[in-house]
Amino acid sequence: MTAAELDAADTLASYRNRFVGASTDLVYFDGNSLGRPVAATVERLTEFVHHEWGGRLIRGWDERWMDLPTTLGDDLARVALGAAPGQTTVGDSTTVWLYKLIRAAVDAVVRRDPARTEIVIDSDNFPTDRYVAEGVAAERGLTLRWVEVDTATGVTADQLAQAVSERTSLVVLSHVAYRSAWLADAAELTRIAHDAGALVLWDLSHSVGSVPVALDAWDADLAVGCTYKYLNGGPGSPAFGYVNARLLDELTQPIQGWMGHADPFLMGPGYAPAQGIRRFISGTPPILGMVAMQSMLELVDEVGMAAIRAKSVALTSYAIELADTTLPEVTVTSPRDPALRGGHITLHHDRMREVNARLWGRDVIPDYRDPGGLRIGLSPLSTSFVEVEAGMAAIGEELRR
Amino acid sequence: MTAAELDAADTLASYRNRFVGASTDLVYFDGNSLGRPVAATVERLTEFVHHEWGGRLIRGWDERWMDLPTTLGDDLARVALGAAPGQTTVGDSTTVWLYKLIRAAVDAVVRRDPARTEIVIDSDNFPTDRYVAEGVAAERGLTLRWVEVDTATGVTADQLAQAVSERTSLVVLSHVAYRSAWLADAAELTRIAHDAGALVLWDLSHSVGSVPVALDAWDADLAVGCTYKYLNGGPGSPAFGYVNARLLDELTQPIQGWMGHADPFLMGPGYAPAQGIRRFISGTPPILGMVAMQSMLELVDEVGMAAIRAKSVALTSYAIELADTTLPEVTVTSPRDPALRGGHITLHHDRMREVNARLWGRDVIPDYRDPGGLRIGLSPLSTSFVEVEAGMAAIGEELRR
Repeated sequence: MTAAELDAADTLASYRNRFVGASTDLVYFDGNSLGRPVAATVERLTEFVHHEWGGRLIRGWDERWMDLPTTLGDDLARVALGAAPGQTTVGDSTTVWLYKLIRAAVDAVVRRDPARTEIVIDSDNFPTDRYVAEGVAAERGLTLRWVEVDTATGVTADQLAQAVSERTSLVVLSHVAYRSAWLADAAELTRIAHDAGALVLWDLSHSVGSVPVALDAWDADLAVGCTYKYLNGGPGSPAFGYVNARLLDELTQPIQGWMGHADPFLMGPGYAPAQGIRRFISGTPPILGMVAMQSMLELVDEVGMAAIRAKSVALTSYAIELADTTLPEVTVTSPRDPALRGGHITLHHDRMREVNARLWGRDVIPDYRDPGGLRIGLSPLSTSFVEVEAGMAAIGEELRR
Repeated sequence: MTAAELDAADTLASYRNRFVGASTDLVYFDGNSLGRPVAATVERLTEFVHHEWGGRLIRGWDERWMDLPTTLGDDLARVALGAAPGQTTVGDSTTVWLYKLIRAAVDAVVRRDPARTEIVIDSDNFPTDRYVAEGVAAERGLTLRWVEVDTATGVTADQLAQAVSERTSLVVLSHVAYRSAWLADAAELTRIAHDAGALVLWDLSHSVGSVPVALDAWDADLAVGCTYKYLNGGPGSPAFGYVNARLLDELTQPIQGWMGHADPFLMGPGYAPAQGIRRFISGTPPILGMVAMQSMLELVDEVGMAAIRAKSVALTSYAIELADTTLPEVTVTSPRDPALRGGHITLHHDRMREVNARLWGRDVIPDYRDPGGLRIGLSPLSTSFVEVEAGMAAIGEELRR
C-alpha cells in the first residue's frame, strides 16, 4: 500500500488533528525526544492559570493539588503502566527519581544482606541512569557490575543471568534502549534478577506511551520514567516513580522533605515518612507541569495502549520497509522483529551527523546519536504514514547530496 | 491616612492590575504561600505551547531551553538575589536543592577537615530544611546541633556565636522565619559562621521577591529558595540554587545526572561534572515552569527591589497599626521594627485555627500555622491598603463572633 492508502486505512489517523502543528509540512521524527503538544493543553493551562491558580489560590492545595502527584500517578499507572493504584507518583525529574529509588533499593537490600554490594547495569543504558548509579555506588561503597551490550541490541536473558549473583543488590535496566529501540523482555529479566535475590528498577522513559508496560504483571520492584517523550508533557515535564506495594513499608528514600512526611502540616520536629507511595515525594509538587500532561493521558486512555502500540509497530515497520527499498546506503540498527522493538528506529551511516544537520535545515526533524545513528521517533498518534514517507525521502536526498 | 488615601498615594498601586483576580473582592493574605499569577503569564504560556514547544519542538533545546536554567538563574540573581552571574540555576524543588547543596557542602568540608561533624540549624527553621538536614546528618554520620529559638524571633548573632565551633561544617538558616517573619541579619550571621570556619546555606524562600537579598555582599556560600511565594511562579514552580563562585570548583553534588555532565550529549561512559554552576543541575530542566515565572521577574526588574521592599514595609506596618488599634484580642508575634521583619506578619490568638477557617468561608484568605498563628502575607505588588483594611476588619468580626 502507498503511504496515502495506509493513512486512509488508519483508524487512528484523525487523532493527528488533536496536536499542535501536526498539520504543517514539517516532518517530525523526534517524538521519542519531545512529543508535540496536545492542542487541548493550551486551554487547560489558560483555565488553570485564570481559575485554579488565580481563582482558588492557596485553597487549590486542599482542593486538588496536594493529592495530584498520587491521583495523576494512579491515572498514569492505569492508562500506561499496568500498575494498580497506590504505587506511582509524579514529580521531580527522571534523574532525581533514579537517585531516590536506586538509593532506596540498595540501602534496603544492604540492610537485609550486607554482602549484596553490586549494582548491575548495562553499558548502553541511558547516560543519566549510568551516571546516577555510578554516583550512588561511590557514595555507598558499592560496585557497579557492567553488562556489556552491543549498541544494536540490549541486555539478553543470558547476559543478565551471568551478571547477577548473591552479590547483586539491584539491577537497573531500560525497557526500550535509547539508541537501538531494543525492547527488553521485562518479565523474564525481572524473574532472573529475582531468582538471584536482587531487586530490579525499570527505566520506562523510552517506552511509556508507545509500548504497553505491565509493571505489576512483571512483578517489577521499581520503575521511573519521563513524560515528555511519548506522553507529550512538554520539555522537562515532571517524571514519575513506581514502587511495588510489597516494598512500600520497607523502602525509604534519602531526600526526606515535608511533602513526604506522615503529616506535612504538623511541621513538628523529626521526620517520619508517610505511609504508602507518598513517602517518595520530597518537595512541593510541580502542579503546572502536571496539568500540562493531563490531556495526553486522556488521549492515551481514550485510544488504549494496544491500539497505540499497533499504530507504532505499523509506523516503524513502514519506515524499515522504506529504508530497505529506498535507502541502500544505510543499515537499520534497530531490531527487525517488531516484538523486539520500541517506538523508534535507528538508521546507521557514517555521515549521519551532517545528514541530520541538513535535514533540520529543511524542516525534517529526526535526531542524531553517536556513533552514526539517525533516530526516527514516530509518535503514534501524531505521525502519519505520508509524513514517514516524506521524511525518508528527504533522508535519501541528503545522503546522496 | 485612611486605606483609600494610602492607596491613592501609592506609586505602585497600578501594578495590582497586572495580576489575575486582584480586582475581585477576595482578600488575599497568602501571597507568602502562593503568589497570584501575573496576567501576562497566560499569554506567555499560550505562546510557549503554540510556537516554542509546538513550533520549534526538539530544536527548542538548542535554541533556548538548554541554557534557560542558568540564563533565568542569572536574571533572578541580578533582579532579586544580589548575585553576580554564573552562580545561580533554576530547577528542581527547594527540598531537592536543600539535599544537593547540604550534601555538597558537608561532603566538601569534611573532606578538608574530618573533625567538622556538626550541622548547625535552628529549631524553628522551616520543616523541610530540618528534615533534609536530619536525613543528610544520619546518612553521613554527622550530628545536628540545634539552636533553640523562640517562635516569635529567629537566630540571633549571640545564639549563633555560641553554637558554631571548630566542629561545625555547615550552618543552615532561613533569611525570613516562616512563622514570625523575623528577618535575619544575614551578613552578620554569615560572618560569625565564617569566623568559625563553617559554610552557610541561606534559605531565601520567605524573603526573595519581598526583601532585598545581597548574597554576594553577605559573602554567602550557598542559598536555595522557592519561586511560588513572592515570585509568583505558580504552585510548585521550580526552585533555585546558588553556589558562591569561589566554591564552584570544589563542590560537587550527589545527584549526578546527564544535565550536570561536562558534555551532556557525549553520552559516554563515566560522569564528569560540568564547570561552573551547571554541575549542580541534575535532570532535564522543567521548562514550562520556568516560562511561567518570567513575567513576574520582569515586573520585579521594572519596579526594583527597593521600591517593592518599601511597599512591603508600608503594608505590614499598616496591618500592625490596624491590629494595635482594632484587634485588642490578638498579639502581634512578628517583630515590630520593620528592619527586623519580612513580608508577612503573624497575629496570635488561641482560636486562630477556627477563625482562619471562617475567614476562608467569606473569601478572606490568610493561613494558619501552629501554635495559634494567623499569617498575613502581603504580596507587595498585588495587595492594596484597602484590601488590608477589609481583611483586618473581617478578622475582628470573626474573633468576636
